[in-house]
Amino acid sequence: MDLRKKFGSKVKQLREQKGYSIEYLANIADIDRTYISDIEKGNRNVSLLIIEKLAKSLEVDIKILFDYE
Amino acid sequence: MDLRKKFGSKVKQLREQKGYSIEYLANIADIDRTYISDIEKGNRNVSLLIIEKLAKSLEVDIKILFDYE
Repeated sequence: MDLRKKFGSKVKQLREQKGYSIEYLANIADIDRTYISDIEKGNRNVSLLIIEKLAKSLEVDIKILFDYE
Repeated sequence: MDLRKKFGSKVKQLREQKGYSIEYLANIADIDRTYISDIEKGNRNVSLLIIEKLAKSLEVDIKILFDYE
């Protein structure tokens, strides 16, 4: 599977595990709501700074966002 | 430390461990030589697709690029 899709699915999975809405995650990560939605669909080639914001907001180590086993 | 710096240092460390020159890594990863050099200095906000190319070329799991303990 495309890395963007795997990354997006992982963000969605972790967000739902925390019981966060897309709106709430967007708010705490300071990322646009539509951008989060696009990331989760695997449509965004996100950068390090966005990856870092997502990890902090989801309270996980960045490595977890790349753990696809 | 800034995530871009930590990421860049890790790329450099793994590249040197493999005995690759910047030129060689640039060639196998299909990334410009000057761009690799900038990444290693922590001056680039690299994206998922570049991260994937680097991991494949350095023959490591992507998680390793974010392992900073």
